[in-house]
Amino acid sequence: MFESAELGHAVDKKTWDAEVPALREHLLNAQFELASQKRFPVIVLIGGVDGSTNGETAKRLLEWMDPRHIKVRAFPEPTDDERLRPPMFRFWQALPPKGQIGILFGGWHTAPIVDRAEGRISAAELDQIIQRIIRFERMLAAEGALLLKYWLHIPKDVQRKRLKMLAKDPHTAWRVTKLDHQRFKRYDVFRKITEHFIRQTSTGEAPWLITEASDERYRDLTVGQSVLAAVAERLKEQTSAATPDRTPPLLPAIDKKDVLGELDFGKKLAKGKYEASLERWQGRLAKLTRDTRFRRRALVAVFEGNDAAGKGGAIRRVTLPLDPRQYDIIPVAAPTEEERAQPYLWRFWRHVPKLGTATIFDRSWYGRVLVERVEGFAPESDWMRAYTEINDFEHQMARSGIIVAKFWLAVTKDEQLKRFKERERTAFKQFKITDEDWRNRKKWDAYHRAACDMVDRTSTTSAPWTLVPSNDKYWARIHVLKTLCKQIEKSLESA
Amino acid sequence: MFESAELGHAVDKKTWDAEVPALREHLLNAQFELASQKRFPVIVLIGGVDGSTNGETAKRLLEWMDPRHIKVRAFPEPTDDERLRPPMFRFWQALPPKGQIGILFGGWHTAPIVDRAEGRISAAELDQIIQRIIRFERMLAAEGALLLKYWLHIPKDVQRKRLKMLAKDPHTAWRVTKLDHQRFKRYDVFRKITEHFIRQTSTGEAPWLITEASDERYRDLTVGQSVLAAVAERLKEQTSAATPDRTPPLLPAIDKKDVLGELDFGKKLAKGKYEASLERWQGRLAKLTRDTRFRRRALVAVFEGNDAAGKGGAIRRVTLPLDPRQYDIIPVAAPTEEERAQPYLWRFWRHVPKLGTATIFDRSWYGRVLVERVEGFAPESDWMRAYTEINDFEHQMARSGIIVAKFWLAVTKDEQLKRFKERERTAFKQFKITDEDWRNRKKWDAYHRAACDMVDRTSTTSAPWTLVPSNDKYWARIHVLKTLCKQIEKSLESA
Repeated sequence: MFESAELGHAVDKKTWDAEVPALREHLLNAQFELASQKRFPVIVLIGGVDGSTNGETAKRLLEWMDPRHIKVRAFPEPTDDERLRPPMFRFWQALPPKGQIGILFGGWHTAPIVDRAEGRISAAELDQIIQRIIRFERMLAAEGALLLKYWLHIPKDVQRKRLKMLAKDPHTAWRVTKLDHQRFKRYDVFRKITEHFIRQTSTGEAPWLITEASDERYRDLTVGQSVLAAVAERLKEQTSAATPDRTPPLLPAIDKKDVLGELDFGKKLAKGKYEASLERWQGRLAKLTRDTRFRRRALVAVFEGNDAAGKGGAIRRVTLPLDPRQYDIIPVAAPTEEERAQPYLWRFWRHVPKLGTATIFDRSWYGRVLVERVEGFAPESDWMRAYTEINDFEHQMARSGIIVAKFWLAVTKDEQLKRFKERERTAFKQFKITDEDWRNRKKWDAYHRAACDMVDRTSTTSAPWTLVPSNDKYWARIHVLKTLCKQIEKSLESA
Repeated sequence: MFESAELGHAVDKKTWDAEVPALREHLLNAQFELASQKRFPVIVLIGGVDGSTNGETAKRLLEWMDPRHIKVRAFPEPTDDERLRPPMFRFWQALPPKGQIGILFGGWHTAPIVDRAEGRISAAELDQIIQRIIRFERMLAAEGALLLKYWLHIPKDVQRKRLKMLAKDPHTAWRVTKLDHQRFKRYDVFRKITEHFIRQTSTGEAPWLITEASDERYRDLTVGQSVLAAVAERLKEQTSAATPDRTPPLLPAIDKKDVLGELDFGKKLAKGKYEASLERWQGRLAKLTRDTRFRRRALVAVFEGNDAAGKGGAIRRVTLPLDPRQYDIIPVAAPTEEERAQPYLWRFWRHVPKLGTATIFDRSWYGRVLVERVEGFAPESDWMRAYTEINDFEHQMARSGIIVAKFWLAVTKDEQLKRFKERERTAFKQFKITDEDWRNRKKWDAYHRAACDMVDRTSTTSAPWTLVPSNDKYWARIHVLKTLCKQIEKSLESA
């Protein structure tokens, strides 16, 4: 695998001086066009076991291009803040928007290799991380990102000499750390693990490009020319179309029975009983979220449902007992320009809570498989792959100690009509009813089916859906609070 | 995840009688068009923990359609013959060709779930198998196959009643085995593992369709209509185009140094020394392949190289010491019609040797990234993904005890010219030189680059490439024999 990167590749100064000016000019032009088209982001990963080599290459690319459209990010040990979130959190934060180039050195690949080589994770754990990385990169490709992955390889004898030379010169000795020597001792182990990693994560859309890094000029010119060729090729493509629609159709059940239709909408609670229950369950929720074990947990509560089903009211009852410093409510509407320039789930990753805190989503990432599906805002292939991406997202949260609770508040079609009319009549509720609500109501069946498919495909043990018949608001609110408390309780038991 | 499949779905006899005739007619028509278009195969996986349910559904589909264009395959415990090959071998053999429908029940998914539930494999091993399955299914989708995956779910209480009823009736009691009861006891364990498995292997191109199977009519009508809808939709698609070309370009090294160019073509061996060495290494190879430990090993030796580099001669020297009952030589030319109707690697999987035997490939699956790349027979996205698929293929062989040895026989351009001319002059060698050889020679540089990329991307610890400078045939043959012996020896040490 490293055969070609151990030939002693080098570029002389003359070639360098002749090539670099033209390369820089072309890179700047490509960058300018990229920034004006704003069609796709370019993600340049620079990896390799020698950290300083990767850093130098990143610096060189930055020096050659317009720094306004480039973002360079390194990933040293995670900060305290990052440690309180799922491992992929910081990589999501580092993604460049469409039209920009992000140079991520170290990237999401170096840490797992080092962790494995130094025995901190098992071979099976490495394979699980690899699986997560493959899914992540696949999502990036499906979202249209141009992902370029460079592995800067230094042959064993070159690395030995390099460390010796640097150590001998008093001006450079500081650059060689004890860690460098330790790592060199494990060169062969690193090499074997790297080979496995590279083989597993090299895909057609995003192969690793292994480059010999013994000679700086060869290394930087190779990476620079390769970035230029890839960006130029993609800029020429007229279409931004991703994969063709190759999804087998989802059919409704032949007997018309579905999870929402089977709900018992007769559930009721009298006012007096409601008030007593409310006090009881809110008290319980207050205690649970103040429990010391909750510091190793976090809460993501998702509220979705029919228009006028009472999401707002339920959310208020849930947040009342929480410490205001402890939670955020995220109302989800149409994405902002900044958000549209990123992969779909980016705007939700931003709000993933730290351990010890909670995020309440008033509508959520499920918009992709509900409104975007029904209204045709997303092509079928995009919303179909979203089920998998959403399950991955929630699974990553659950693995990091986040309790994921999802509520679908359902009302019958008649009840919705009653509420719409009431809103129109009541002055202080009129802001709550718009033409859009009436338009959505006309697509009742399509939304109904989308919601059923959503439950089937995304209700899992680690992130279950709770379907709440909400014709009676009292019953619905208590059911939400009760379910939430029980889910948190169960999770704290294992905290 | 199973919410919708636990609603007690059922279809009454009247609906059944009304729906089935039309469904059958449409299925037959779709099948007929599929068979005449011959554009893609349809693979229907029927899974679910209850084996007999899966079997009945497969039978019903068969009954509804034209059996000439359907292949039904079950996967009980592997046969002795299958046990001597990598686990995916039997699934490759079961793939339907383009234009046909294959119904695979049990499929590649049931065994891992059962093995995990019954504690024969660990959670990490299950995840490794899942990774292999995802790659396999992804390859099928990239090759254009329509993959439909049905999971037939039976709710716990329904299954309990079912087993009781069958056991009570003397006519059906035989259908309930001890195994059924044992499995039922682990219902919840199975369910949890199944959920994990389904979540991981549901992708946009090939999602699992979970169907309640409590009621036979509902079950069969649902699967039948879904197959029909999916096949009809795909038949309407005019293009068979797979994914668009989204591959970053591969550039040659800027300093023009590459693995083939760096070979030392001065290597030579005098005739006398050659003859002595030949005897020695052939003797060693004979002994190694007759070693009792070789029964737990197999050999795949791949010969590629420039035209007239001496592949045939080298192969003859390798096979001479082998027991003729023990090996096959597979000369690889253009694929047959049968082979063209299958995914690319299918024709090589057929020849994967059983443990204790050897297969010598005179040219191989590397044609995809050599001649097909250079001549433009395969689009870039196809040959780019081939590197990954080939690595997977070889890795699966290596994991099953197969020693994978790959030789690239290289001659210089001048030496090739000399040999071409000599072949034209020598009467008994004239069959060896054709117009095509002269045409290929004109593309020397393109082939050279493709071979270098191939070595970089597919030489791995478990299946390394050996580059053999072959200007001197004697030296080349001995080098091949010696390398082969050492590779086998090393592998036998761990057998």
